[in-house]
Amino acid sequence: MTRRDGAAEALTLSDGRRLRADRARQVADVLRRQVLYGEFRAGPLPSEADLVIEFGTSRNTVREALDLLRAEGLIERCPGVGTVVVTEKYPHGLERLLGLAETLREHGEVANEVRTTGLITPPREISARLALPEGEPVVYIERLRRLNGLPLSLDLTYVARDLGEPLLEEDLAHNDIFVLLERIAAQPLGLGELTVEAVNADPHSAATLEAPRGAALLMVERLTHLADGRPVDLEFIRFRGDRITMSGTLRRD
Amino acid sequence: MTRRDGAAEALTLSDGRRLRADRARQVADVLRRQVLYGEFRAGPLPSEADLVIEFGTSRNTVREALDLLRAEGLIERCPGVGTVVVTEKYPHGLERLLGLAETLREHGEVANEVRTTGLITPPREISARLALPEGEPVVYIERLRRLNGLPLSLDLTYVARDLGEPLLEEDLAHNDIFVLLERIAAQPLGLGELTVEAVNADPHSAATLEAPRGAALLMVERLTHLADGRPVDLEFIRFRGDRITMSGTLRRD
Repeated sequence: MTRRDGAAEALTLSDGRRLRADRARQVADVLRRQVLYGEFRAGPLPSEADLVIEFGTSRNTVREALDLLRAEGLIERCPGVGTVVVTEKYPHGLERLLGLAETLREHGEVANEVRTTGLITPPREISARLALPEGEPVVYIERLRRLNGLPLSLDLTYVARDLGEPLLEEDLAHNDIFVLLERIAAQPLGLGELTVEAVNADPHSAATLEAPRGAALLMVERLTHLADGRPVDLEFIRFRGDRITMSGTLRRD
Repeated sequence: MTRRDGAAEALTLSDGRRLRADRARQVADVLRRQVLYGEFRAGPLPSEADLVIEFGTSRNTVREALDLLRAEGLIERCPGVGTVVVTEKYPHGLERLLGLAETLREHGEVANEVRTTGLITPPREISARLALPEGEPVVYIERLRRLNGLPLSLDLTYVARDLGEPLLEEDLAHNDIFVLLERIAAQPLGLGELTVEAVNADPHSAATLEAPRGAALLMVERLTHLADGRPVDLEFIRFRGDRITMSGTLRRD
């Protein structure tokens, strides 16, 4: 590092400790990626001494970087073994509109705990999004979705009535709504409009997802249209941040 | 709601309170969207009594929903005025590869505090991602990015040396790296490979971003290629979750 900007200090740390925290973040980000992409699946992370050489930094910085990843729940120190990866984050594509079981097929079995279903009169905002007249009932479905038994997401779903009522006759515990909707509508889905945010879990959502209070969630709102353009499925999805990554490719033009 | 699944209770709440929490989340998600899309920009939210009618639910549920949005820092109760929106989340497109100032042009001025720059010998992981021989130096740039003075993101950037060194001669405080890179390389950028996660801020990142400890961050890793396919710019970006939403459209096929 050759230069530091003279801007006002946001922190009360001494310059040395601030520099170390900045360096630790830099090291942690690189290790994090290696952890997420399975580089240490076969054995422990390199020793602190090796990481000091690899990153050309101090042992204290390496320790602080490992602390950051431990605080995220990605790694753990095992006496006699070293530092090992203790979690797996699953990739959810931003490339194509896919249901959860479709996208995670290689990673295991998705099972859905159906918490609530019913015909409701939706608030105006929902009617407007689904291009329905005010007061027209829609089907509401609430599911806690697990991969290999671990809670992954809590999904609140509003479906247009003509497709939603037949949907309730189907096996929602073992099928993606996307796949079922295509069968019922006898046409493929078309576009999904997606908004992605990071939010802290409220206590009740955290408990439902078996996550720590305040855990970072990837919150997705998604309006899905049939191939003919009609919006039919509006979902509010809370993914556990520690279990999902979303990946895609953007083009400049 | 007509049916509840008999699966094991994840919570110790009584059934009534659990139901109310579920309903409150449902109401909050709808209000949240209206808040984010500026529906209440001109004035306060509807009164509790009006929300009770709109959502066909109890006053306690409405209160709990408002509490959820208040805990997220989106709304505040103002004595004598009602409940008002107190924050704005800015949209960052998932449609096209854009720099921050480009994507937020309508929303105000992006200014970057350049915290560190320098030529470094990167760890192997960085070299591999940038398709560089091991040990080849790269330019490292760390920026705290603000919109209208508010911290939005902390960006750690690694750039191939031939483009990175000229970059350091440019005005990094007032320009997106994307725009500068295209000028220096005398060709447009091509693809960006993107990974998006939600993580809790570590204490030092939180302090730097002036966010609460543990705040949910939208963490983006992005590898950008020139139009000719060469990877030149690897970034690790921590967005404040309470200030950014990402939106895009996915196709089923």
